[in-house]
Amino acid sequence: MTGGYQKGRIRRDDLVSAAAKVYGEAGYHASSLREIAKRAGITHAGLLYHFPTKEALLAAVLERRDAEDAAREQLAAPPGLEVLRRFVALAEHNVRHRGIVDLYSRLAAEAISEDHPAHAYFARHYREAREAIADSFHALAETGELRPGIDPDLAALTFIALMDGLQVQWLTTPTQVDVVGSLRLSLQTLLTVPLFP
Amino acid sequence: MTGGYQKGRIRRDDLVSAAAKVYGEAGYHASSLREIAKRAGITHAGLLYHFPTKEALLAAVLERRDAEDAAREQLAAPPGLEVLRRFVALAEHNVRHRGIVDLYSRLAAEAISEDHPAHAYFARHYREAREAIADSFHALAETGELRPGIDPDLAALTFIALMDGLQVQWLTTPTQVDVVGSLRLSLQTLLTVPLFP
Repeated sequence: MTGGYQKGRIRRDDLVSAAAKVYGEAGYHASSLREIAKRAGITHAGLLYHFPTKEALLAAVLERRDAEDAAREQLAAPPGLEVLRRFVALAEHNVRHRGIVDLYSRLAAEAISEDHPAHAYFARHYREAREAIADSFHALAETGELRPGIDPDLAALTFIALMDGLQVQWLTTPTQVDVVGSLRLSLQTLLTVPLFP
Repeated sequence: MTGGYQKGRIRRDDLVSAAAKVYGEAGYHASSLREIAKRAGITHAGLLYHFPTKEALLAAVLERRDAEDAAREQLAAPPGLEVLRRFVALAEHNVRHRGIVDLYSRLAAEAISEDHPAHAYFARHYREAREAIADSFHALAETGELRPGIDPDLAALTFIALMDGLQVQWLTTPTQVDVVGSLRLSLQTLLTVPLFP
């Protein structure tokens, strides 16, 4: 690895961090590449060298967060109860990191439109999250740990949608919303064994 | 009722309808009172007579929707299973009316900020929705129709958050999200009796 390449990587990471910060403060649509470049201490032309469009930078911010979440919480565990526990741990992490949850929730709503630059990201993000959880519910169905009659795919949709819905309500009225308690309740009612023995 | 008063009511309703339409297309922040006035076929000054601020008009749009929902679905039934069924019917209505759900979901995310003009509306809306559902879960707990060990208030939070989270995911990828199926699954796992016998 050359010094120049190393420096390029650091600049890129700095820009993604600065972008996440500016989006969180001003919203994606109201933020500008100029402001982000200024915040990262780089010229506008320097930013455009790394990220030619606003969309490219946005995608990098969201993808970095998913990669960080997956690595920190080890979400790619073998399907089963442990994966569900790790998603609950992710929710616990999220309520200690309001900024990124705020950014995610606002962007998710903006990205409803098919022509929004983050639309494809969210469609993929939802699908991958549902699939990860569905794999675990299917495994639990085979071992008899999922309650009889529960559709594993519908249960997975329910869990991911609940996680997102709780976050918006929690961001709006933090003292009135027990994100982790609600997720535990919802998961536990689907199982024949204790989620946290 | 005088003809003038009647005409004023109609104008006001037209303005609320035009506003809901413009918000749904452009988002609340990007929409202007001038555009809404134009759409309703009234002068800017005429609009200001009915709604002196952007915020006053926004509040009127959201409150009219809640009142319409409550009347149509008869949400103020005595606490119990029937209330839960009526909220499921509301979700069925929502998936046939994408526009207002889109508006609601975008505004809910924008209104996370305490200084957003709809923040107070959403804080109240969430609290009232949770309370309506919690009353029913408390009643079901007394009759043994709520599964033992379930906290009625946490179950109510779960239901309302799930409803909102499902809507955002459904708006983003309509063919992949079964809103009503997920709500039925979630409610049924909380009960000792069939939700829909």
